[in-house]
Amino acid sequence: MGIEKAVAGVSEGDFDALLIPGGFSPDKLRVDQKAVDFVKAFMETGKPVFAICHAPQLLITADALRGRKLTGYTSIIQDIKNAGAQFVDQEAVVDGNLVSSRNPGDLPAFIKACLEKLEA
Amino acid sequence: MGIEKAVAGVSEGDFDALLIPGGFSPDKLRVDQKAVDFVKAFMETGKPVFAICHAPQLLITADALRGRKLTGYTSIIQDIKNAGAQFVDQEAVVDGNLVSSRNPGDLPAFIKACLEKLEA
Repeated sequence: MGIEKAVAGVSEGDFDALLIPGGFSPDKLRVDQKAVDFVKAFMETGKPVFAICHAPQLLITADALRGRKLTGYTSIIQDIKNAGAQFVDQEAVVDGNLVSSRNPGDLPAFIKACLEKLEA
Repeated sequence: MGIEKAVAGVSEGDFDALLIPGGFSPDKLRVDQKAVDFVKAFMETGKPVFAICHAPQLLITADALRGRKLTGYTSIIQDIKNAGAQFVDQEAVVDGNLVSSRNPGDLPAFIKACLEKLEA
């Protein structure tokens, strides 16, 4: 299965949850204002958002992390703190609608926490 | 010419200036505490520091940007602001010892500003 929709053609009402993968894609997505606006609007719905590795970079540009509790990849710890969030160093962090993990090694815990959130 | 020294084996007194390139290398360097400590110590000397593209990420982890004025790659604008610095959208920004540019397109202005700082 490939890409079915462009972010420019969808809205936050079209989906039940948002998963933001890591790697260097968040660095590229956060320069796209449409992607940033979509993520910001999605966070405001309160529906589940799953973020792993570098994913919080996109949430930072969307200014969606103030007062939130999350984890993320080691390199962006200071960015997460500077964004007004509390960084928690554990394999999966659940804070309301937001589920986050640090790196690929956390995937089993991340998937478990994501599924629990989807089934809640 | 290749790499001559490891960051673990040098100190801020060994060099007259520091140039931090961009790309994804700052993301990798900022997880190395020795690199972060070196950059922090170097910034405190007041000797010239040249930063382009993603280079400010390393300065952010070193907590060396509070109250400073600089530019950087589009994707990290919010990170620069959140780090307590003023983001300036121009091809070269000189703030005391710190010279910064946004992207490879700014290289002519960046090199000119760096040379002026070295010759000062």
